[in-house]
Amino acid sequence: MSKLWGGRFSQDTHHDVEAFTSSLEIDQRLWKVDIQASIAHARMLGRQGIILQTEADQIVKALLQIDDEISSGKIAIDPTSEDIHSDIEKKLRAKIGDIAGKLHTARSRNDQVATDIRLFLRNEVQEIFEALHGLQTYLVSSAQSHTHTILPGMTHTQHAQPVSLAHHLLAYFWMFQRDRQRLADSMKRINQMPLGSAALAGTGFPTEREQLAKDLGFEFLCENSLDAVGDRDFVVEFLSSAAMTMMHLSKLSEELILWSTPEFGFVELGDDVTTGSSIMPQKKNPDVAELIRGRVGLVYGDLMGALTMLKALPLSYNRDLQEDKTFLFRGIDTVKSSLRLMHLMLTKAQWKTQKMQNSLSGDFSNATDLADFLVTKGVSFRQSHEVVGKIVQYCIEKTIKMESISLAELKTFSPVFDESVLSLLPHQAVMNARTSRGGTAPSAVAQQIEIALEFLKK
Amino acid sequence: MSKLWGGRFSQDTHHDVEAFTSSLEIDQRLWKVDIQASIAHARMLGRQGIILQTEADQIVKALLQIDDEISSGKIAIDPTSEDIHSDIEKKLRAKIGDIAGKLHTARSRNDQVATDIRLFLRNEVQEIFEALHGLQTYLVSSAQSHTHTILPGMTHTQHAQPVSLAHHLLAYFWMFQRDRQRLADSMKRINQMPLGSAALAGTGFPTEREQLAKDLGFEFLCENSLDAVGDRDFVVEFLSSAAMTMMHLSKLSEELILWSTPEFGFVELGDDVTTGSSIMPQKKNPDVAELIRGRVGLVYGDLMGALTMLKALPLSYNRDLQEDKTFLFRGIDTVKSSLRLMHLMLTKAQWKTQKMQNSLSGDFSNATDLADFLVTKGVSFRQSHEVVGKIVQYCIEKTIKMESISLAELKTFSPVFDESVLSLLPHQAVMNARTSRGGTAPSAVAQQIEIALEFLKK
Amino acid sequence: MSKLWGGRFSQDTHHDVEAFTSSLEIDQRLWKVDIQASIAHARMLGRQGIILQTEADQIVKALLQIDDEISSGKIAIDPTSEDIHSDIEKKLRAKIGDIAGKLHTARSRNDQVATDIRLFLRNEVQEIFEALHGLQTYLVSSAQSHTHTILPGMTHTQHAQPVSLAHHLLAYFWMFQRDRQRLADSMKRINQMPLGSAALAGTGFPTEREQLAKDLGFEFLCENSLDAVGDRDFVVEFLSSAAMTMMHLSKLSEELILWSTPEFGFVELGDDVTTGSSIMPQKKNPDVAELIRGRVGLVYGDLMGALTMLKALPLSYNRDLQEDKTFLFRGIDTVKSSLRLMHLMLTKAQWKTQKMQNSLSGDFSNATDLADFLVTKGVSFRQSHEVVGKIVQYCIEKTIKMESISLAELKTFSPVFDESVLSLLPHQAVMNARTSRGGTAPSAVAQQIEIALEFLKK
Amino acid sequence: MSKLWGGRFSQDTHHDVEAFTSSLEIDQRLWKVDIQASIAHARMLGRQGIILQTEADQIVKALLQIDDEISSGKIAIDPTSEDIHSDIEKKLRAKIGDIAGKLHTARSRNDQVATDIRLFLRNEVQEIFEALHGLQTYLVSSAQSHTHTILPGMTHTQHAQPVSLAHHLLAYFWMFQRDRQRLADSMKRINQMPLGSAALAGTGFPTEREQLAKDLGFEFLCENSLDAVGDRDFVVEFLSSAAMTMMHLSKLSEELILWSTPEFGFVELGDDVTTGSSIMPQKKNPDVAELIRGRVGLVYGDLMGALTMLKALPLSYNRDLQEDKTFLFRGIDTVKSSLRLMHLMLTKAQWKTQKMQNSLSGDFSNATDLADFLVTKGVSFRQSHEVVGKIVQYCIEKTIKMESISLAELKTFSPVFDESVLSLLPHQAVMNARTSRGGTAPSAVAQQIEIALEFLKK
Repeated sequence: MSKLWGGRFSQDTHHDVEAFTSSLEIDQRLWKVDIQASIAHARMLGRQGIILQTEADQIVKALLQIDDEISSGKIAIDPTSEDIHSDIEKKLRAKIGDIAGKLHTARSRNDQVATDIRLFLRNEVQEIFEALHGLQTYLVSSAQSHTHTILPGMTHTQHAQPVSLAHHLLAYFWMFQRDRQRLADSMKRINQMPLGSAALAGTGFPTEREQLAKDLGFEFLCENSLDAVGDRDFVVEFLSSAAMTMMHLSKLSEELILWSTPEFGFVELGDDVTTGSSIMPQKKNPDVAELIRGRVGLVYGDLMGALTMLKALPLSYNRDLQEDKTFLFRGIDTVKSSLRLMHLMLTKAQWKTQKMQNSLSGDFSNATDLADFLVTKGVSFRQSHEVVGKIVQYCIEKTIKMESISLAELKTFSPVFDESVLSLLPHQAVMNARTSRGGTAPSAVAQQIEIALEFLKK
Repeated sequence: MSKLWGGRFSQDTHHDVEAFTSSLEIDQRLWKVDIQASIAHARMLGRQGIILQTEADQIVKALLQIDDEISSGKIAIDPTSEDIHSDIEKKLRAKIGDIAGKLHTARSRNDQVATDIRLFLRNEVQEIFEALHGLQTYLVSSAQSHTHTILPGMTHTQHAQPVSLAHHLLAYFWMFQRDRQRLADSMKRINQMPLGSAALAGTGFPTEREQLAKDLGFEFLCENSLDAVGDRDFVVEFLSSAAMTMMHLSKLSEELILWSTPEFGFVELGDDVTTGSSIMPQKKNPDVAELIRGRVGLVYGDLMGALTMLKALPLSYNRDLQEDKTFLFRGIDTVKSSLRLMHLMLTKAQWKTQKMQNSLSGDFSNATDLADFLVTKGVSFRQSHEVVGKIVQYCIEKTIKMESISLAELKTFSPVFDESVLSLLPHQAVMNARTSRGGTAPSAVAQQIEIALEFLKK
Repeated sequence: MSKLWGGRFSQDTHHDVEAFTSSLEIDQRLWKVDIQASIAHARMLGRQGIILQTEADQIVKALLQIDDEISSGKIAIDPTSEDIHSDIEKKLRAKIGDIAGKLHTARSRNDQVATDIRLFLRNEVQEIFEALHGLQTYLVSSAQSHTHTILPGMTHTQHAQPVSLAHHLLAYFWMFQRDRQRLADSMKRINQMPLGSAALAGTGFPTEREQLAKDLGFEFLCENSLDAVGDRDFVVEFLSSAAMTMMHLSKLSEELILWSTPEFGFVELGDDVTTGSSIMPQKKNPDVAELIRGRVGLVYGDLMGALTMLKALPLSYNRDLQEDKTFLFRGIDTVKSSLRLMHLMLTKAQWKTQKMQNSLSGDFSNATDLADFLVTKGVSFRQSHEVVGKIVQYCIEKTIKMESISLAELKTFSPVFDESVLSLLPHQAVMNARTSRGGTAPSAVAQQIEIALEFLKK
Repeated sequence: MSKLWGGRFSQDTHHDVEAFTSSLEIDQRLWKVDIQASIAHARMLGRQGIILQTEADQIVKALLQIDDEISSGKIAIDPTSEDIHSDIEKKLRAKIGDIAGKLHTARSRNDQVATDIRLFLRNEVQEIFEALHGLQTYLVSSAQSHTHTILPGMTHTQHAQPVSLAHHLLAYFWMFQRDRQRLADSMKRINQMPLGSAALAGTGFPTEREQLAKDLGFEFLCENSLDAVGDRDFVVEFLSSAAMTMMHLSKLSEELILWSTPEFGFVELGDDVTTGSSIMPQKKNPDVAELIRGRVGLVYGDLMGALTMLKALPLSYNRDLQEDKTFLFRGIDTVKSSLRLMHLMLTKAQWKTQKMQNSLSGDFSNATDLADFLVTKGVSFRQSHEVVGKIVQYCIEKTIKMESISLAELKTFSPVFDESVLSLLPHQAVMNARTSRGGTAPSAVAQQIEIALEFLKK
C-alpha cells in the first residue's frame, strides 16, 4: 500500500511493523471530528488563497458526503488503513482525485491528530458533565424526600452520630459538584487549537488561525507550535478528573454493597439491576456496584499509563504519543457508563428506613450530646468527655441503652445533670439539634438543598 | 499519657499501637496553621457567646504566645505527643489550665485537621505559583536574546525543521503557564472551609461559619459536614497538578541531559550545578537534571498512593486519611525544590549556539520547504512530498547537502524548479519563513513573546 | 568542603545543589552494610596484593572500630556529609590518614552503593519473611480452635454458604504463604554481587570477585558490569512483593473493620489496639486496621515511583537511581510495621461466635444444598437451580426460614423431595457436607491444617 | 434471555445492566481453555460416579466437537452471550440437550473462571519465555561479533570509559535473563488449580482433585476454596514481571532512539522498520522504538489497575475481579508484541562502528587509567584523582586530547609519570585493560559469553 511518506524509502515497511504501528483500531472513533477539522481547514485554505476557492469547495463538498456516507453506514472504515486520517484522505481521493492532496497543505498529521483529539474530548466532556448533572439532580430530589429519615452516621465505619439520609446522599452531591466544576475548568485547557502548527515549527503558507479557531469552536489558540504538537496535558488532566469521579463512585458503590448485606439491610437493590449466582439459587448480588468499584482500577491505571508515557519525553511530537487515545478512550467510556449505571441503580434502590432507624437503638451515637449538655453547664469539654465515657462503659456493662438511662443514674456520674437532659437523648432529637450550617438537622439540610439547587441551575 | 478520648477505655493503648498511629513526625509542619485556625475558632466562640468573651481572649492571647515561642525556638514540639493538635492543646493547657479545654467546643479533630491542611496547602500553592512565574519570566527573557539562534527542531528525536532557541525555550513557558493556570483553578476547591462540620454531622452550638471563613481567608464553605471531614479531593488534585509540573520538568531535564553529551554539545552546564565522579576525574555530570527527572517518580507515586488510599472508602472520616499528609508534603517539597533548582541550573547554562548551527549542516531539515515550493507552483502536496523524498535519497547517495544542491540537479527531478528555489534552502531562510502564528520565524516568536508577557502580568 | 571528585572543577558546588543532591538523610541507614562491604573489599585488595597486606589490616581494623563506635553511639553520622559513603571514608581518614584513600582502589561509588543496598535489603527480606511466618503460625493456631465455628461465607459480600472461621482464617494463611514463597524466589535476584564492577566497565586491577562474594554471603555474581551498576530490578521486585503483602493485609483489615461494626458484630478488637474520639465519648475505632488499609497506598505509590524512575533510563548508572532508597526504605518500613501490628491486633481480637452463628438464621445460604439434593436424584443442575430459586422466593414472601420449611411445602415445588432432605438444611450440616479437598467441612479443614503446618516447617 | 441464575428473580435484568456486566468481549479469548477444563471436569465427574460415565462421554465428545468447530470457524461465539462460559454451555446444550446441565455439577463459575485464566496465562507465559530466549540468543550472537567494537561507555549519559559493543548488548542479555527467571518462578504460583473449590466453600460431591490437576497439567492444588476463587495474585505478579520486561525494552528503545540521531549516529535502523513523515520528506523515524517506549505505560497502568482493583476487597469472589482479564490480556499482548518487534528491529540495525570509535577521540574517557597508573605507583587514589582532574582541565584549556599528551606535560603535574604511561592511554588499550570478571576487556567478555550460553541452555 502506498504511504503518505514513502518517497525516500527503498524498502517497504515490514508487515509486522505495519501491524505494530497501526492505530486504526483505536483512532477510528475520530472519523467525524477528523472530517470536521478538515472541512474548516479547507475553507481557511480557500479563504486565504492558499488553494483555489473552487478546490476548497470541492474538498468540502466531498468531505460532507463522506460524513454522510459513514454516518448512514453506506461506506465503512477500511481496516487496512494506517490510521483514520489516511483512511479519510483515501476516501476523499476516491471522490475527487488528486485535488485531495491539496488538503494536506499547511498542516501535518501532528497538528491534525492533536486537533481531532481535542474536538473529540470536548464533546465527551460535555456528555460527562451532563451525566454528572443528571445524577446530582437525582440525589437532590431523593434528599428532599428524606430530610427526616434517620440512620447511623459513621466515622471509622463505626456509629458516630445520627444523620439524615438526605444529608448522606447530599454528601455525594458535593463530590460530583467538584467533579463538574473541575471538568469545566479543564475545558480551558482542552479547548485550545493546535491546528496551524504544522509538523512542529509552523508554516510559511499565509494561514490564518484566529477565524479557523472560531469556526471550530475553539476558545484559545495553542501559542507555540513545538508545544502544540506534543502537548497531551489535557489527556492527563481529563484522566485525573475521571479518576476522581470514579473514586467518588467507588465510595458510593462500597456503601451500597455494605448496605445491601443482610447485617445492614439499609437498602434493597432492584431485581433488574442485580444478578444471581450460577450455583447458589438464593443469591442476589450487587454486581453493578462491584463492577463500578472494580473499574476505578481502569481509570487509575490509564492515568498512570498516560503519565508514564509522557515522562522525560523530548519536546514536540514523538510516536509514543500514539497511545494517548488508548488511555483516553477507555477513561471516557468507563466514567460515562459508570455514571449512567450508578444513576440507574439508585433509581431502583429501595431505602429500608425502618432498618436504618432500628440500628440506632442503643448504639450510643447520642453520647456527644450528653457531653455537650455538660459543656453548656460550664464543664470543660475535656472533663465532659471523660464523664460520658464512664457512662458509656456503665451502660455497656449493664446493657442499658443510653436513651433509656434514668436521671438518677446520670447523677451518680455528675451532679450537673438535670431533668432537661433526658429530652436530648432520643436519636431524632440528636439529629434535629445539629442545626449549624452544613449540619444534619432538617432545617440545615433544607438550606443545603436550596444551595445545591442553585448550583444545579448554573 | 492521658488521651483526649480515654474515658470509655479500660486498657491503655499498646505501646506499638501508639507508635504506629502517631502522626506527629509528619503533621508537626501544621503547627502554625493549627494555631491560626484555633485563634479564629476561639474568637468565633466568644463572639457567639458559646464561651465567655474573657475565656476566648485568654485562649487567643495564649495561642499567640505559643506561636511566638515556637517560631523563636523557645519551646519545641514534644515528640511524645500523639499529633500536632494534641501538642498545641497541651501547651495551651500549660499556660491557662482548664480553660484550654473550652477551645475544643463545637469542633472535632476531624474538621480541625481538614482545615489545617487546607490552610497549609493554600500557602504552598501560592509559593509554587510564584516559583513557576519566576521560571517563566526567566524563559521569556532568555527567549528575547535568542529569536535568531537556530538549532535543529526535532520530532521523533530526529531532525525535522530548524527552529530558534527562543521558540524552543518558549515551548516550556506554555507548559508552565498551563501548570500555573491549573493551580489557580484548583484553588477554588482548596480554599473551602470544613471548620464547623465538627465530627461529621455539624453541631448544635450556635456557631457562625460565614464570618469565621472570612477571618481565615476562605473563599467558600464546605456545605455538607459528612463530605467536609472526608474530602481529600484537593490533595489528589494538587498532586495531579504537581505530577504534571514534574513531568514538564522531566522533559526539560531530559533535553538538558541530551544536549550536554559531547555528541550534541548544545549546552554546557555550570561547574557549580554539576558534580563529578569519585573514580573518573574527567566527569562532569548533569546530576541536578537527572535528579529532577528521577524525582518525577516521587510525585507520580504520591498521586497513585493518594488515589489508592481513597478508593472505596466509606463516607466521612476514616483513619486511612491520616496518610494524606505523607503524600501531600512530599509532593509539595519535590515540586518546589525541583522548580527552584531547574531555575538555578538554567541561569548557569551556556548555550553553545555555534554547535547548534553546525549540526544543521546537511541534515535535510530544509526538505519540507522544497516540497512547499512545488506546492506553490501547483503540484499537489502528496506529489511534491514524493519528489523531494527522491531528492533526499539522491543527496544521501551522492553525499551532497541539500542546501548545496544545484538547480540543474533539481530540474532532473522536476521541471517546475527555478532559480528562486535556491534562496529557500539555507536553514536560516527556512526558519525565517515559518511566520504563521505560533511558528518559529523571528517575527512570529516576537509576537509570541508579547503574548507571553501579557500572561505574566495577569 | 572537599569533594571526592573536585579536581577538574573551577567552581565550588552551589549550596542549593548540595542540599538538592545530598542523599545522607536517606542513605545513612546503610552505614553498617557499607562498613561490612568495605571490610570485605579491603581484605580482597590485600589478598590480591593490590594494596599492601599491612594497609589492608589497618583499614579493616579501623573500620571495625568505626562500626563499634557508631553502634555504641560514641560517634555520629555527620549531617554535612554528601552521603553515607563519604561519611564513613571521612571517619576512616580521621583514624588512619591517607591510607584511607587506598580503600577506594578498584571500586567506585556506583558498585559500592549497589552492593550496600543489596546487603541491606537481604537482611530486611529475612525479617519480613519471619514476620510473615509468625503471622501464619498464629493463623493456623487460631484455625485449630475454630474448625467448628460457623459463620456466613460470602461472595459479592452477600451470604453465600456457611463456612468455618478456621477456613476463613486459613484463606489468609495461603496468601501470606505465597508472599513468603515470592520473597524467597526474589532472593535469587537480590543476592547477587555488583562489587567489582567499578564505575561501569570493570577494572584493570587484579581483583578476585568469587571469594569476595562468598565473604559477603552473596550467592551469585552480577556478570556484566554495565548492568550491575544500573540494575534496580530487585528494588521493583521487592516493592511488587511488598505491594501484594499490603494488599492482602488491606483485605484482612477491611474485613476486621466490617466485622467490628455493630451491624456485623463478629469481632471485638481489644481496647489497647483501638482508639477513641476527641469528641464522641462512645467511640472505639479500628484505627490500626484503617491505617494498614490506608498505607497500602504508600507501597503501591512506591512501586509506581520506582517503575517511573526506571522508565527509558539509559544503561548503567544515572543519578536518577538515587531515589531507589526513598522508595525501598518506605516500602520496607511499611510492610514490616503493618505485619507486626496486624499480628498484634489479631491476638487481641475476640471472635463473637454466637453473633456469627445467629446471622446465618434464615439467610438461605443453605439453598445450594437443596439444589444439590435434587441433582443427586437425577435432576439436572440447571433445573434444580430454577426450582430452588422459586422456593427462596416463596420463603421470602412467607417469611419462612429455609431451615424451617416443611416437606409438604417442598413437595409443592418438586415431587422428588423426600424426608431425607430436611436433615441437610441446618447450617452446620451444610458446612459439614463440604468435604472436598480445600473445602470447609471440619474434616477437610483438618487436612488443610496439616498441609499448612508442613509448609511452616519448610 | 434465560440466565443461569434467574430462578428467584421477579424482573428481567435491565438492558443497560446486561451491557455493563457482560464480559464476553474480553473473555471470549478463553474459549479454548474453557473447553479444556470442562472436558477434564466431565471426565472426573464420570470417573467418580457423580454423573453417569455415559453422560460424561457424551459431554466430552460434544465439547471436542465444539472445539473443532470454533477452531475451524464453523461456528462462532454468540455476541449476545453473557460470558464465554455461558456461550460454551449454550453450544453444548444445542448438541446434547439437558445433559449439558450436568456439567455444572460440583463446580461454579467462580472456580471455573479462575481455572481458565490460569490455563490461559500458563500458555502465554511459555510463549513470552520463548520470545525472551530468542531475543537473548540474538544478543549473544551479536555480542560474539563485537567483542572488539569500541564505543563510549556512559554514566549519567556522559562519556565515562570505553566499552565494547558486545559488553553493551550483553547488559541487556542479563536483564532479560532475570525476566525469564522471574517468569519461571512465578509459574509456581500460576500453575495451581482452583477447580473443585466450587462457589467458595468446596462441595459435598465426592470429587477428586489430585488426578484432575494432573490431567490439566497443574503442578499444585489451591488448598483453600475461599482463597482459590478470589486469588488474583498471579495476575499482579505476571503484570509486575511484564512491567519490568517493558521497562528493560524501554531502556533499549531509548538508546536506539538516541543512537539514531545524526549527532550520535551509532546505528542506522532498516527502512522496513522505520517510518516517514507525512510532511517532511527527509524523515526516517524510529517509530517502533518509540512505540515500545510509550507502551511501557500500558503495562505500568495495567499493573496499577490490577492492584487498585484488589485493594481492600473482601475474601473470595467479588464481581470487581471481572476486570482481571482486561488488565491481563493487554499486558500479555503488549509484552509479546514488543519483544517480537524489538527482536525484528535489532536484526535490521546496522551498527555504525566507525562513528562509535570516532566519538571517543579526545573525550577523556581514558582519564581513570591515568589515575590508576599513579595508584600502582603508590599514590593514594584520592590524590591521583585530584592530579588527573587538573590534567583534564589543562587539556580542555589547551584543546589537547589526553591520548596525545606528552610525557613532559604529564610530568609537570606529577614526577611519578614515566614512559610506560603513554601506552595506557589509547582507548582500545583502556578497554582491553578492564579484565576483571564482568568487565569490558575482550577476554572478560568472552568469559561472559560462555556463561550466557550456559544460561541459554538451561
